[in-house]
Amino acid sequence: MDVSVIDRCRRLELMLVDIDGVLTDGKIYFVPTANGDWDETKGFSALDGIALHWFHAYGITMGLISGRKSRATELRAESGHFKYCYMGNHEKIATLEEIIADAKVPRENIGYMGDDLTDIVCFHRVGFGIAVANARPEVKREAHYVTEARGGDGAFREVAEMVLKAKGKWGEILRKYEVGLG
Amino acid sequence: MDVSVIDRCRRLELMLVDIDGVLTDGKIYFVPTANGDWDETKGFSALDGIALHWFHAYGITMGLISGRKSRATELRAESGHFKYCYMGNHEKIATLEEIIADAKVPRENIGYMGDDLTDIVCFHRVGFGIAVANARPEVKREAHYVTEARGGDGAFREVAEMVLKAKGKWGEILRKYEVGLG
Amino acid sequence: MDVSVIDRCRRLELMLVDIDGVLTDGKIYFVPTANGDWDETKGFSALDGIALHWFHAYGITMGLISGRKSRATELRAESGHFKYCYMGNHEKIATLEEIIADAKVPRENIGYMGDDLTDIVCFHRVGFGIAVANARPEVKREAHYVTEARGGDGAFREVAEMVLKAKGKWGEILRKYEVGLG
Amino acid sequence: MDVSVIDRCRRLELMLVDIDGVLTDGKIYFVPTANGDWDETKGFSALDGIALHWFHAYGITMGLISGRKSRATELRAESGHFKYCYMGNHEKIATLEEIIADAKVPRENIGYMGDDLTDIVCFHRVGFGIAVANARPEVKREAHYVTEARGGDGAFREVAEMVLKAKGKWGEILRKYEVGLG
Repeated sequence: MDVSVIDRCRRLELMLVDIDGVLTDGKIYFVPTANGDWDETKGFSALDGIALHWFHAYGITMGLISGRKSRATELRAESGHFKYCYMGNHEKIATLEEIIADAKVPRENIGYMGDDLTDIVCFHRVGFGIAVANARPEVKREAHYVTEARGGDGAFREVAEMVLKAKGKWGEILRKYEVGLG
Repeated sequence: MDVSVIDRCRRLELMLVDIDGVLTDGKIYFVPTANGDWDETKGFSALDGIALHWFHAYGITMGLISGRKSRATELRAESGHFKYCYMGNHEKIATLEEIIADAKVPRENIGYMGDDLTDIVCFHRVGFGIAVANARPEVKREAHYVTEARGGDGAFREVAEMVLKAKGKWGEILRKYEVGLG
Repeated sequence: MDVSVIDRCRRLELMLVDIDGVLTDGKIYFVPTANGDWDETKGFSALDGIALHWFHAYGITMGLISGRKSRATELRAESGHFKYCYMGNHEKIATLEEIIADAKVPRENIGYMGDDLTDIVCFHRVGFGIAVANARPEVKREAHYVTEARGGDGAFREVAEMVLKAKGKWGEILRKYEVGLG
Repeated sequence: MDVSVIDRCRRLELMLVDIDGVLTDGKIYFVPTANGDWDETKGFSALDGIALHWFHAYGITMGLISGRKSRATELRAESGHFKYCYMGNHEKIATLEEIIADAKVPRENIGYMGDDLTDIVCFHRVGFGIAVANARPEVKREAHYVTEARGGDGAFREVAEMVLKAKGKWGEILRKYEVGLG
């Protein structure tokens, strides 16, 4: 990992993510709801779930900008302590700017994680663009970092550990969980 | 990609697809509905979802002919702007001819994407037969093009990008998403 | 494929299958039903679905003996034209004998497809024992044939094609679907 | 397998497991329930299901300590004859101690199976720590044994067979299922 990536991790205050293909593997399942309608569900990762708790505990703000709208994504946002949850618009610039205006965090301290072309406009407007392993090639080429793990299979977790290491918090976490103290 | 495939992409006006194994990985999950019955669901791809929006925006008509019948497939058709949604018949010739008669598109400007033996009769009646990476060997042998991606994991997206490139629209899309402009 | 396997295919009149790990990948998902209870669902394969129609059309009787009980399995049995659908007993001998007594098919003309130790007693009581690619090693060792495809990903389809070829019906199917006539 | 692992298997009286990533692949799907709420579901393995019956039959007590709370996990606990089912707390020491106090089993006769950092505190307080193939590297380093199979794909089954072999019960099981008697 080059110095620039470590530096971007160190500065991170606000992490924004796309959902499908990033916190999931991009598969969408339609499921019937109690009122006779249908909604969509998708597979989130328990590994990412713990990482979201760590970010919350260390004061790193989370937000999501998803082209798709679903109760499943809202539930992930709620249990993962997301401050921002914007769904249903593939054109992401306006939403991103709204979040930035509200959060009052300098752009260079904001990260964005994505997998598809619609995410590149966000890379261009924040300080740390991250592509998942399964991102389209165009997205990987414009990212500051490409994860080894795939979306929905630990990609967010990988970034979270990297960020917490850069911020000097990882040792604290390892001690709390008694890693190496057995 | 040979000249003939590029040419078939360039002419494409109407794209017809099988669903199971093509827009999904072929897995079928039975799920209980609100009225006490059960229906089936399956995993669609977010990557394909955006490609369906592009086809809609550029005036390429979509249709599906699925041997299986489910609300999940109908929902995919609705959100993906499909003009034709025929379900429940493994014998596809009559349905295909009905669509062609209605669409008034020359056969050589119609594409069909499939994975199983039941799809071959459609290949024989349109100008562009496409087999997914996970198609049965007999289907691949009769296709003009075999995708590198598997059904439900970007196979439709792969074809959509190929078609939009052949039609000279891809640069427009990349510019819209600021690819290479960062 | 050795002569003995072809011969077992040719004689086949009744095909019995285990469900989890054979017609599915062995994964079980609990899902809430309309009345407030929960049931389980699992991923069946569209490739197998067509093969079940072929068996029905050619008069090969289908039955299932599953250790687990679920509406999803019943629905697979219904849409797949299964004559026998026994669920909920890991000890399979009594059930197998009940089916054999009812079907009045000689044991050597019965096939059984399984993946786990509980299936071996069935192998020993019928003429054609088939293990899926993901079967436990003990099961593979006692089978007459081990599929190349995994359960839920075309294992049943592979056997169905093999049987229909051995019975001289495959050419008819290929002609019906216009394979090689393009 | 080294002597120490065989010995730990032989002594085992109480087996505790984490759920997500251990009895499942770690993926979490939100699903709507009949009363209008949503709960989460996840993919359990039929291979593990039979192993849980064997443990029950041979008097090995089962318990689970999961950071996440869901009806799906409760249903797995019920059908798998779990005596202990603790959900909803990522900090596992207090729960572990409560189980140990109730079970009155010496710590060296207790096993714990996990995949994530939160599981390491349990490894340190029991006699047999087991990491699944997909466990985080820190977890594997502190385990007495790392499974070859992944969570939700036979990891528990692998350990169960190992334990029953070490306890001299495996031959009995194989004979019951007629393995090698065909």
